[in-house]
Amino acid sequence: LKLSLVLAESALELVPEEVASSPDVASDSRRRGKKAREILLDRSFHQGAMATLEEGMKRGRPDLVHVALLSVTSTPLYLEGLVDVYVHTSRDIVIRLKPKTRLTKSYVRFRGLAEQVLAERPNGGLLSVSQGSLRGLLRSVRPDWVCGLSTQGKQSSFERVGMDLSGRKNPCVVVGGFPQGHFAQDTLKAFDALLRVHPMPLDAHVVVSRVIYEVEKHLND
Amino acid sequence: LKLSLVLAESALELVPEEVASSPDVASDSRRRGKKAREILLDRSFHQGAMATLEEGMKRGRPDLVHVALLSVTSTPLYLEGLVDVYVHTSRDIVIRLKPKTRLTKSYVRFRGLAEQVLAERPNGGLLSVSQGSLRGLLRSVRPDWVCGLSTQGKQSSFERVGMDLSGRKNPCVVVGGFPQGHFAQDTLKAFDALLRVHPMPLDAHVVVSRVIYEVEKHLND
Repeated sequence: LKLSLVLAESALELVPEEVASSPDVASDSRRRGKKAREILLDRSFHQGAMATLEEGMKRGRPDLVHVALLSVTSTPLYLEGLVDVYVHTSRDIVIRLKPKTRLTKSYVRFRGLAEQVLAERPNGGLLSVSQGSLRGLLRSVRPDWVCGLSTQGKQSSFERVGMDLSGRKNPCVVVGGFPQGHFAQDTLKAFDALLRVHPMPLDAHVVVSRVIYEVEKHLND
Repeated sequence: LKLSLVLAESALELVPEEVASSPDVASDSRRRGKKAREILLDRSFHQGAMATLEEGMKRGRPDLVHVALLSVTSTPLYLEGLVDVYVHTSRDIVIRLKPKTRLTKSYVRFRGLAEQVLAERPNGGLLSVSQGSLRGLLRSVRPDWVCGLSTQGKQSSFERVGMDLSGRKNPCVVVGGFPQGHFAQDTLKAFDALLRVHPMPLDAHVVVSRVIYEVEKHLND
């Protein structure tokens, strides 16, 4: 098995041009001693600016992306090299983690790292970055099954999704990397199945950690 | 069921007197505009200072504590009010989360909150703080079973621990809130059982999220 895990339409981006000169971005930029366009858009600090952004509710949550990534990269399945992890952002940038990379648990370090790679777009190393849509990413990964998880999906469970994923050669599971709202139409078109794993809406990191765990369990059965 | 979950000997504390005037603490304190004794001890920034501290390897990891707490507080079991969460620190302070509290995913906000409650020690609210040992905490919680999880424990599994916990009325599971090393002798004496849930050593947040998930599964069976 080689599982691809994609956080899709993730709320991770540098401050966009439209709000770079807004008061809360400017004061955050001064405090941190970095240019406005070189810091992560973050709802915790840029609430005023975010209110004016298109699709603002789905953006500016680097904390959420960090925690979701940690909940994959600390698992035995990932540490054994059986999971490839991709962050696709709402601005159509794709970040690929080098397999088996242990991500820093320090958010402050993660923020510095994310700001650096989003600005420099390195083609290799720990995190490699390229411009591209989710569908473009899937064309290059060529999974034998693409399963999106959403509260809008057909009722299923972590067990069943884990079983279905573990029975394939190179399946792909896609989880939303945003705090609320739903996948865009274009994203939905990329899925072979759209499933709902729990009656409650759950945070991305909970979904990701339970899916990985169920895949591990089925592989060991 | 009412499950108590304790992060024990957690690496969460304000900068202690001994290293308050060390160069890396002083520069962090200046940058953040807070007194040295009012900021969290953090290995990411205070590496030099930490090297001189007693038991330094087990201390100064507020990031780890935050991620472990998030992996409980986002679960259905917790959100339904069936888990009481406590952080016992290596300095014998006990922080109790108000049941069903959703903790901020923003590390920067969490840090501010932790610094405030460790300094002010509020007796109620979102987080209440008191001085006390793990054994003192357990005397007030009065669990019907205390299960510590450790690589030094007897071989078991997440499934079995989840089953054992879910079969009790008010069990307590204790996970180390530190990056490496083992529970102190005094902590070990508080356990009815010491179990090992996985062949690999795992991060606290992975252990916690899997235990909670298995308890949920057994309750729903």
